[in-house]
This record gives sequence, structure tokens and C-alpha cells, in this order.
Amino acid sequence: MSSFGLWIVGAGGHVGAFTLAGWHALRAGLLPPTGLVTTAPPFETLPLGALEDAVFGGHELPGRSLAEAIERLVAERILGREVAEAAAVRDGVAAAQRELREGVVDHGGWDDVQRVRTDLDGFRARTGVTRVIVLNVASTEADVADAASLPRDPDAFVAALRAGARLPASAVYALAALDLGMGYVNFTPSTGSDLPALHALALARGAVHAGADGKTGQTLLKTVLAPMFAIRRLRVTSWVSHNILGNEDGRALHDPGRRASKQRSKRAPLAAILGYEPESHVGIDYVPSYGDWKLAWDRIVFAGFGGAEMTLELTWRGSDTALAAPLCIDLVRLVELAQRRGERGVLAYLALFFKSPLGASEHRLDRQWQALVRHLLPELPASEVP
Amino acid sequence: MSSFGLWIVGAGGHVGAFTLAGWHALRAGLLPPTGLVTTAPPFETLPLGALEDAVFGGHELPGRSLAEAIERLVAERILGREVAEAAAVRDGVAAAQRELREGVVDHGGWDDVQRVRTDLDGFRARTGVTRVIVLNVASTEADVADAASLPRDPDAFVAALRAGARLPASAVYALAALDLGMGYVNFTPSTGSDLPALHALALARGAVHAGADGKTGQTLLKTVLAPMFAIRRLRVTSWVSHNILGNEDGRALHDPGRRASKQRSKRAPLAAILGYEPESHVGIDYVPSYGDWKLAWDRIVFAGFGGAEMTLELTWRGSDTALAAPLCIDLVRLVELAQRRGERGVLAYLALFFKSPLGASEHRLDRQWQALVRHLLPELPASEVP
Amino acid sequence: MSSFGLWIVGAGGHVGAFTLAGWHALRAGLLPPTGLVTTAPPFETLPLGALEDAVFGGHELPGRSLAEAIERLVAERILGREVAEAAAVRDGVAAAQRELREGVVDHGGWDDVQRVRTDLDGFRARTGVTRVIVLNVASTEADVADAASLPRDPDAFVAALRAGARLPASAVYALAALDLGMGYVNFTPSTGSDLPALHALALARGAVHAGADGKTGQTLLKTVLAPMFAIRRLRVTSWVSHNILGNEDGRALHDPGRRASKQRSKRAPLAAILGYEPESHVGIDYVPSYGDWKLAWDRIVFAGFGGAEMTLELTWRGSDTALAAPLCIDLVRLVELAQRRGERGVLAYLALFFKSPLGASEHRLDRQWQALVRHLLPELPASEVP
Amino acid sequence: MSSFGLWIVGAGGHVGAFTLAGWHALRAGLLPPTGLVTTAPPFETLPLGALEDAVFGGHELPGRSLAEAIERLVAERILGREVAEAAAVRDGVAAAQRELREGVVDHGGWDDVQRVRTDLDGFRARTGVTRVIVLNVASTEADVADAASLPRDPDAFVAALRAGARLPASAVYALAALDLGMGYVNFTPSTGSDLPALHALALARGAVHAGADGKTGQTLLKTVLAPMFAIRRLRVTSWVSHNILGNEDGRALHDPGRRASKQRSKRAPLAAILGYEPESHVGIDYVPSYGDWKLAWDRIVFAGFGGAEMTLELTWRGSDTALAAPLCIDLVRLVELAQRRGERGVLAYLALFFKSPLGASEHRLDRQWQALVRHLLPELPASEVP
Repeated sequence: MSSFGLWIVGAGGHVGAFTLAGWHALRAGLLPPTGLVTTAPPFETLPLGALEDAVFGGHELPGRSLAEAIERLVAERILGREVAEAAAVRDGVAAAQRELREGVVDHGGWDDVQRVRTDLDGFRARTGVTRVIVLNVASTEADVADAASLPRDPDAFVAALRAGARLPASAVYALAALDLGMGYVNFTPSTGSDLPALHALALARGAVHAGADGKTGQTLLKTVLAPMFAIRRLRVTSWVSHNILGNEDGRALHDPGRRASKQRSKRAPLAAILGYEPESHVGIDYVPSYGDWKLAWDRIVFAGFGGAEMTLELTWRGSDTALAAPLCIDLVRLVELAQRRGERGVLAYLALFFKSPLGASEHRLDRQWQALVRHLLPELPASEVP
Repeated sequence: MSSFGLWIVGAGGHVGAFTLAGWHALRAGLLPPTGLVTTAPPFETLPLGALEDAVFGGHELPGRSLAEAIERLVAERILGREVAEAAAVRDGVAAAQRELREGVVDHGGWDDVQRVRTDLDGFRARTGVTRVIVLNVASTEADVADAASLPRDPDAFVAALRAGARLPASAVYALAALDLGMGYVNFTPSTGSDLPALHALALARGAVHAGADGKTGQTLLKTVLAPMFAIRRLRVTSWVSHNILGNEDGRALHDPGRRASKQRSKRAPLAAILGYEPESHVGIDYVPSYGDWKLAWDRIVFAGFGGAEMTLELTWRGSDTALAAPLCIDLVRLVELAQRRGERGVLAYLALFFKSPLGASEHRLDRQWQALVRHLLPELPASEVP
Repeated sequence: MSSFGLWIVGAGGHVGAFTLAGWHALRAGLLPPTGLVTTAPPFETLPLGALEDAVFGGHELPGRSLAEAIERLVAERILGREVAEAAAVRDGVAAAQRELREGVVDHGGWDDVQRVRTDLDGFRARTGVTRVIVLNVASTEADVADAASLPRDPDAFVAALRAGARLPASAVYALAALDLGMGYVNFTPSTGSDLPALHALALARGAVHAGADGKTGQTLLKTVLAPMFAIRRLRVTSWVSHNILGNEDGRALHDPGRRASKQRSKRAPLAAILGYEPESHVGIDYVPSYGDWKLAWDRIVFAGFGGAEMTLELTWRGSDTALAAPLCIDLVRLVELAQRRGERGVLAYLALFFKSPLGASEHRLDRQWQALVRHLLPELPASEVP
Repeated sequence: MSSFGLWIVGAGGHVGAFTLAGWHALRAGLLPPTGLVTTAPPFETLPLGALEDAVFGGHELPGRSLAEAIERLVAERILGREVAEAAAVRDGVAAAQRELREGVVDHGGWDDVQRVRTDLDGFRARTGVTRVIVLNVASTEADVADAASLPRDPDAFVAALRAGARLPASAVYALAALDLGMGYVNFTPSTGSDLPALHALALARGAVHAGADGKTGQTLLKTVLAPMFAIRRLRVTSWVSHNILGNEDGRALHDPGRRASKQRSKRAPLAAILGYEPESHVGIDYVPSYGDWKLAWDRIVFAGFGGAEMTLELTWRGSDTALAAPLCIDLVRLVELAQRRGERGVLAYLALFFKSPLGASEHRLDRQWQALVRHLLPELPASEVP
């Protein structure tokens, strides 16, 4: 099995840096695979690419240092100092730092697409890898109404860009990656590869992609709790959700435009699972001192038989980054396998990992899990799906 | 389709009375079927017995009036006064009152079995029904070590009883019911039909039975949340659970012996789903002023990738009775169908309804749901299981 | 002791209607004085006006019926049906209904002041009472920047009004009341009597007034919890507060202008007590199905010795109306006493009842309580203040 | 001002070690005085002994090392590594280690009293300090019914001991300390100096003492929240409290006898403040993985005007040790001042610090604070008490 490359857009953010450091720590046996799906039964027999076979690069704002990002992870108690300072991790991070290129901010045009293409192509050539997966963990973008009005045909799409049309940065990366036949994973609620022309392009180029918006906390909970109400026919009257966060993602979401995009992504699963829309509210508060330690609070009011009003309240506290990074590692390994197996287009069976799964309408976690297992291990009898 | 009888052991308790009143309110269209599984897709095509076709009786302590029990439900805001006072409900309750017989308390011997048999047989004869289902919703019993040492062979079991051995009351009812070929549902953590001799007897008599301990609140939540931790490989360090309740069940559980039986029932699902035993604690506090409005509080500590400690806290508040009664109605209708279809022995596919499902090792709610649908609607494609 | 009149602005809202119904229920011994300060030690010796000596009237939108408002209180389980339908309460409410007049909406000018004056004067004349207290429990108004720029001198203020200046409705009522020498209590965060010219007018006319914004829930908690952090020198890093409410107040606060006025009122006490400003956020969600049953959730992060981060989370659920109405009854009785005792101007010692106490900078509940007792019972030794 | 000695009983436990390390860190300016009362206004003018003037010793089990205890504080994130490893802290801890003597376990007789006396006297002589304060932070003892039946007269008490009577260890220390005229502070719910004969002895020897059971978390909250319900006349129906803890204290409290002593200490303030006894429950769960990070959960149900049921829920999470240690430092400094000022007997004005304040019936935090300020700064006008 030949080696592969992981290119991280937003490599110097919390999630990017922890994905990198975590990958090297796993490889060196410095951390147990807690929170990773791909290292445990029933997937231990899957021919996944070895952790040792990966090389790393990425886009970031100029002047952002991966080492400093790692230091922030230590200061916020996401990563232990002894792991961060182990040679295996330090060396891996330093190697990736040398492969960082200046990224695209907010929007980009045809020139930016060309530039990103050159960066990606150069990385592939320089490292000699056969396959590259581009992982987007950059800050959430504002919704861009315009992108949706671009042509659905790939050639017309490119022509429009050449004529001056602009794309959200996440789509610039997706276009460049898919056009080069690379894999693309959108871990954010940004546009990414979810434009008709990019779906068509992926199929044409034999590229695979997946997204969007990693399911790490409050929405993860919703997709196990809402099925309970649905199965038991308990009627949800209202579901109020609040989030408090203080990291870069929080600062980005302080912007109403970006927040709207995230809120939509967080709201959809509920109605999809319940089959109706309860009164709901999704709030996001930016409180800098919370740092990466996100707090999600939900209050659900529901009716039981006879009409009695009942309630469920939840408080979830976790490190956004520590929840996201293992999913990123899982995704990259699964996408790499899909590339090798000759899959193409949207990998809908990866819905388990996303708030807004591309190509899938299923939001229930257990069903997503079963779908993932069935796809990856089709020979496993249904009764043996763990 | 001929009519059937529901015989409620503990008819004058909250759950018994609400099962009765709720059944009549449903039949008269006075209440929507919130919280019932059997009235909604995909089960609308199942040939369930009509609500109109049921007649009712039961065992209770002498002097307990169903009308007073209904009044308590109104006072605790579990049942609306307008429903409780509707003629359809009042008349139905009055009819059931006339079929109440004095029950067995704590323990019983062969004489008690004979007496219960006579009561059940008389009910069947008097009402002319073909099928009877005995539903146990009496207070939780203390564990009885002795019952487990009784012979496994039905004949030897009966011989031991004749020779003076005694059974917990719940097993007295189960023995009488199964011996008569009637169905038996144990909605409590008491022994009920879960003795080897009774399993054998049910098969011999062609009787069906199911149990144990209705899954209505905290354990319901555990069986949707624990799979989330398992699927995502997040490691649960500790899971502390407290319950506050003030109803008859609470008073019974104030007794350490009975509490132990309930705590065991509440603890098992967690380890079964996770595959390991986190530190755990299940507390049950009896606070009379809470009445039927049970409060469950859980605090879960878990580790994410990198070892960071994360937490989830839940507070669930619901009427124990309003959560239990619709499950009782569902169970009776499904057991009646099983009787008509000629099933026999333990109905393991009813695991969805129980904390300690007889005949099943599966505790995950969604899997239990899928098993129920597959059994009842075997022709439904897996992809169409809702 | 002669009788007195209570004139309620917003009489047909939840708080207005419950103040009325509750007053009559107390008078008839139908409800215990739970939640009232004035009926318990050490105030049992205060020469308060008897509940029997009050007559009632008020302003409301045309077409709003007090009986319907009472019915809503019953439906929301704030008032028991048996109390609402007792003759003493029904007759009292009907009498008040006959004294309702059409109120001022949003803003008003000199004509409105004159009209309100006529209404108040007519009420006093018709009922023959010596003293009238005007209680504002109408919906929260939006902030009105203009009012602050009006002249500080009462005569110039009136001249400006005659020349076309307009006032927020709450100030229209306050002006009319104070000018007639009546008492004025502002239970809302609206402007009310808190304009320099109105303060001067009150002193000139020998009128008393108090406000603003009843302290009923989340802020009540803050004013007992913040002193704990202050006394123990625990440093509050952030204090995030959310409110969910579904009543008329909630609908009004859905308007960003009105919300801003409420949020300011809710935020001030914290910094005043702590002596510094922690990161804070006060959210107000309007979820109609919550009705009057407000939910307040707070999450406080604080540092202990050595810098360790600690947390306190609170969830408070109460009926806004049931918390507010007894304070309104207390306030009216205390203001009536102040009138009889010849006090004038702002009654700063009533700070205990308000989020934004007029004339007082003290927000700590216990200190406010001590100040109230000292003022009302100056002869009581400090050591005997309960 | 001459120097003074602090003798810590249980020096190698979490609280003892953090009191020591924290004292040195404060002295060296390595930690801000968060959580300390004595370093902030209005006490900055009090002639407290300088932190530099203290010397340290204590009793502990043989073989327990202070350095290891400090290491555990670092591992549990109570103390920062950089502080723990600073020379000022390390040297201070090493010096105290040299003054550790083997303590008394569980119970002791006259021989033990003599041995402890010798240890204390030797410490005073060796270090040349004028004043010594003995601080008890050892594990909670089980209740000892016998101690209460010992003679109330000091001489008879000693005679009984000589004749073979035994005392709980905490009283052995108290007797030795008070007999030598030293100060004694009981930070635990153990018996300590709270025996009639020891009260008399303290007065006879001119010794001061204070206790019992540091008020650090759940009870601290109760003593600010209960006054709110009392002031506002909201009637508390039930108050359920649970604690989860995993430290040595938790392990000790796992023993039912010791737990009973703690529960009593935790329950008393509520009834004292409210003036009646609501339904209540105080649970203590030992969950080792919680370590020092105690979780307190409270659920309060109360009635408002009209009888509506309302609720307040609280979750408090803090390091038991980080909350306790600054109070210990405050207490030692205030007791040392009392010694210098010639006070004698119980220092009732230190009630602010204790769950079961010796000599005081006042539990309300703000009143305790006012009492403390008035005693220490009698010249401060009441209106200037912060």
C-alpha cells in the first residue's frame, strides 16, 4: 500500500493542530484511541491505510505557527504536555509546518483556485504520495447566497469563475481538490463541495467527498435523544438549545451571518427525526473565557399520555477540539480507503460523522452507525453489527 | 375477532388505575394516543384486538376503590378532570371495580395459587372471553432468594408448593395465569414468571409471557445515551444516577430489600451496552411530596481523545404513571395478538418495553425497536423500518 | 383609618389580574399569605391598611376582560379553580371590571395626561377614598431616548408637553398620579416616574413613588448569590444567564428595543455587588408554550484559591405571575402606609422589591431586607431583625 | 510582633498540604489571595500577624510525605506545577516535613494526650514561638456517644481519662492544645473541642478555640439561598441534596458512622434559617474517580402565592481542597490575632467559616459576615460594612 497525504485547510486552528498532533501521538502509541471509530471492532479487519503512511501539509494564514497552536492545546488541557513534547509529535508537527502554504480568506476567484491547485499539486509531487485528502477545518464562513446561483454544469461553472465570479473560500479549496481527483472532507458548515457543479465535477474526476459540519456535541445528543421521543411517541412541545463557547469558532459565530449558517445546520436533524417541528431555539453565546470548553444546554418539554407536561434538561461540557479531532482522523482514513477502492462522488455512508450529512437524509446516530458498518463490512450479518 | 380480558394485579395503584381509565379514554376518543406505540405507523396495519373488545378485572387489597385511585390521578395532574369524569371512563371504571378480587400479599402458598386460579377462571367464564392477559403492576417485592432454589421441573415445582413451599406473590399470579394458558406480563422488577419451572410451564400450556420492569424513565434514557458513548468510543468513567420519587413505588423502594431488586434492574443495561463497568451509583430517595412526579438525575463523566474529562448531566422529570400506562396498554394488545397467533413462551421481541427484558440481551432502544418491527411486520424491508 | 384605592395600569394582564384576585382571596382567607412579606413577623405590628379597606380600578386596552384574565390564570395552574370561582373573588373582580378605563398605548402627549388625570380623579371622587396608589404592571416599553432630554424642571416639563413633546405611556401615568398627590409604583423596567421632573414633582406635591422592575426570579437569585462570591472573595470569571418565557412579557421582550431595557435592568446588580464586571450574557427567549412558567438558567464560572476553575449552575422555574403578585400587594400596602405617615418622594427603603431600585444603590437582598425593617420598625434592636 | 506556629493535625492530607503550600505561595507572591477574606477590605487595616512570621509542624500518619501530597494536588489540578515547584514553596514544605510527628488514630487515652502535649510543647520550645494554633483537618471521625458522657468538670474529666476513659482523636488534640493555652481550630465535623470540659478548660487556661466543619460548598450555598426563601416567605416543601466526592474525605464518609456525623452537620442550617423543617435528604456518594472535585446537587421545591409549585436546582462543582485551604489560612490568622488580643474561650464571631459554628446559632452568611466585621472593626459604622 502506497502512502497518502493529508492536507488540512485551517491547519493552525485548534482542530487542525490536534488532528496533526493526535495522529502522531496515536502512531507512536502515546495516546489510546479513545473517541476513534476506525481502530475498534468491527473495523479492526478493514484494510485501512496505516497511520505511518501519511504525510501532512495545509493552508493557514501567514505567520501562524503550528507549535504555538499545540502550546494552546496544552494550556487549555486538551493535550497533555508530555504528549505534546514527545519527539514523535514535535517532529511530526515541525514537518507539517514546512508544508504550510498561505490560504484563501473569505472569498476567492479563479486566480485563487489556480493558486490552491498549484499548492496541492506541488505537495503531491514533492511527497510522492498517490492519494491526497483535503480536510477543511477552517472557521465557519458566512452564508453566501451567490454561490447557489452559479451554473450547475462544471464547465459553465469554471467559465463563470474565469469571468470574475467568486466563491466562498471553502468552495475554492473543494474545487481545486476535486479537480485534481483528490478527496475532500468538509468538517464545517461552510459551503465546501456542496454545489451542483462540484458534485458533478467529483463524479467526472473520480473524486470522493464528504461533509458537512462535524457532529460533536449538542447535535450528537439530539440524534440519539430525538429517536427516543419518536419511538416512544412522546410529543416534543419545545426544544430550547443554548451553546456557550469561547474559541475561534465561537468568535466566528459571533458574526450573525456565520451564526445563521451554523444554526441551520444544528436545527435540521430534530424535525427530520421527529417528523414535525417543535417550538425550538438554538442560541450561541461567545464567552471568551470558556476557550475550547464548550457548554451545551438543552431543555426539552414533552407531553406524555394524558397530556401531562414532562421535561428533560441536559448539560454537556466537552472540549470541542478533543471531540472533533478523532472524527477527523477517522474520516481521513475512511476517505483514503474509499479512494483506493475506486469509490466516487459523495460518500453518503459517512453520515455518522456529520450534522448535515451530504447525500443522506438519515440523522439517527444508531442508524447511521449501522449504515456505516453495512457499507464497510457488507459480509457481516445484520445480527452481528455491534 | 372475539373479545379478551385484561386482569390487572394491583389495579387500584396509580399505574393500574391509569391503564384502565386511559384505555377507556382512548376508546372514547377523549385522549390522543401520545406515548403509545401500537397506534402509530408502522403498526396501523397490525390486526390488533380492538380497544372496544376488552373487559377488565383484577386483584387489589380489600377496600381500595378504583374511583378513589382515579381521583388521586386527577389531583396529581396526571389525568384531566374532564376525562376522568366522562361517562365512558366512569362507567368503565365502575365495571372493573365489580370484578376486583382480594389479592395475595407478599408471599403465598399452594392455597393462594388455587384461590387466584379460581378468580381468573371465574372471570373468564363470567365474561365469556376467550383470552385473558394478566398484567402485574403491583408494588415491587423484596428479592426472595428461596424461590430460585425451587425445582426447575413444573411438576416437582407444584409438588414442592403442595408440600408447603411459598412463592413471592408475583409468582403466585404468574403460576395461576400460565397454568390456565393465559398471558402474563410483569411490569415490575418482582420475580413474576421468571422461574425455570414457570418458563417450562408456559411452553407446556401454550401460554405467552413477557417482562420485566417497565422502561419508563432513567433507564430509557440510558439505553439511548449509552449507545452514543459506545458508537463514538468515548470512555465512560463514572455514571451516577439518582431518583427522587414520592409515590407508592417510592414508599416500597424505601425498604432496602425491595430497593436492591430495583437497583439491580436499573444497573444492568449500562454495562451490557458499554461492554465494561464504569464506576456507578444508583440512588433512590423517597420524598413523599414528589408524589408521582419522579425526578431522575444523572451525571456522566467520560474521557475524550487525549484524555480530557468531559461531562453530561441530565434531569428528567415525568409522571411515572403517565409514562407507564401507555406501555401497559401497548403490551396487553401485543400479547393478545401473540396469543391469537399461537405464539408460546417468552415474547423476547417485547424487550423495547422493559428494563430487564426476559429472553433478550439487547438493551439498546433503537435495536429493540427494530427487533419489534421485524417480528411484527416481517415483510417490511429493513430500509423501511421507521 | 379611611379606605384607599388601588389603580392598576395593565389590570387585565397576568400580574394585574392575579394581584386583584389574590387580594380578594387573601381577604377572604381563601389563600395563605405565602410569598408576602407584610403579613409575617416582624411586620405583624405595623399599622398597615386593612385588606378590606381597598377599592380597585385600572387602565387596560378596551375589550380586555378581567374574568377572562382570571380564567387564563386557572388554565395555567397559577390560581386554583376553587379560589377563582369563590364568590369573594368573583365579586371583587367584577367590581374592578366596572372601574376599568381605556389606557394609553406606547406614547402619549399632554392630552393623554389630562385624560388619565380625569380617570384617576374620577375614581377617587366616585369611591370616596382619601388615598390612591397607581401600580404599573403593563408590558415593558421600549427605551425612549427622548424622554431623558426633557426639562428637569416640572413647570418647563409640563410646558414642553403642552408644546407637543411626548412621553412613554408609563411616564404619562406617573405624571398624572404624582401631580394628583397619589402614590406611584413602577413594577416594570419602563421609564415610569424616573425622570428628574417627576422626582421634583413628587416632592412638590407630597407624593410618594417607588420602582423599578419587580425582583422575582433570576435577579433575586443573583442578589443572594453574588454576595456569597463577594464575601468569600471567590472571583467570578463569567456569569451567563438565559431566560425562557412565553407570556405577554415574553412577547413584548421579543422586541429588541424592549429587551434591551430589560437586559440592562437585569445586568446592573451583578457588577454593583461584585465590584467588578465579569464576562456576562443575559438572553431572553420567547417560547410561547412556556406560558407564564418562566425558566431561568445561570452558569457561573469562578476561580478559587490556586486558580482552579469552579462552576455553579442554576435552574429556576416559577410562575412569573405568582412570584410578582404578592410583591405588588406588599408594595401597595407599604406605599399606602407611607402616604399616611406623610413621607414624600422616592421610597428608597423599598429596594428589596426591585431589580433597579429607585433611590438606592444596594442590591444585596439581605441588606435590603435589613434596610426595610430598620425603616419600618426603627425601634427594633439590630440584633432582633429576623 | 513575635512569630507564631501553626500545627496541622492531618498535615499530609489534601487540605493540610494545600494550606501549607498556599501559605508559602501567598507569602512569596506566587498566588493571588483569591478565596481569602483576611487580605481584602475592610480587613486590610487589621494588625494580623505577617505571613512571614509563621512556622509549621503537625501530626500525620508515619510514612506520609508532604511532598507526595503536594504532587497529588498538582496531579488533580488544584495547584499549578510552577507554584508547587517554586523554591519558596518547596523549602517551606520541606521545613514542615521535619516537624511532623506521628498522630493519634481514631481514639486515644491519657497516654496519647501526654504524647501530643509533648509534641506540641517541643514544637513551641524548638521554634521559640510565643503562640501556637492547632488546626484539625484530619479525616472525619465517627460519632462517639461515650465522649458526651464524660464529666463536665475539667479536673474530673482528666481524672476519668487517667482512669482509662478514651476520647476521639480530635478531642485528644484539643485537650492537649487548650491545656497548653494554645489555640485550637476544628475544621472538621469531628468532636474536637466541643465537650463541656474542654470549653471550661479553654476559659481556665485563657485559650481560644473555634469550629466546626468548614463551610465550603453545598452548605455555603444553603446559607445564602435559604435566607432568600425566608425573606420572601416562599415556603420550601422539600430540599434534596446529593454530594459526589472521591477524595480521602469521601472514603471516610463511605463509613456510615462518619457519614451520619457529616450529614447532621450539613442538615442543621436549613431548619435554623427557615424556621421549619422541609422534607429533606442529604446523600453522600463516594466515587473515587471524582478525586477532590466535589459535585453538589440540590433540588428545592417551594410554593409561591396561590400554591403553585416552583423549583430551583443547583449544581456546584469545586475542588474541596481549594475551597477549604484559604479558609484555614484566614482562621489561623484570625485566631492568632485573638490570642494576642487576650480573647478566651469560643470565638463565636468566626461562625462565617463553619457549618456548625461553635457558640453561634446564626447560619446566614451575610449576617455572619456582618458579625465578623463588627467584632473585628467595632469602630466601623454599620453603613460602611462592605
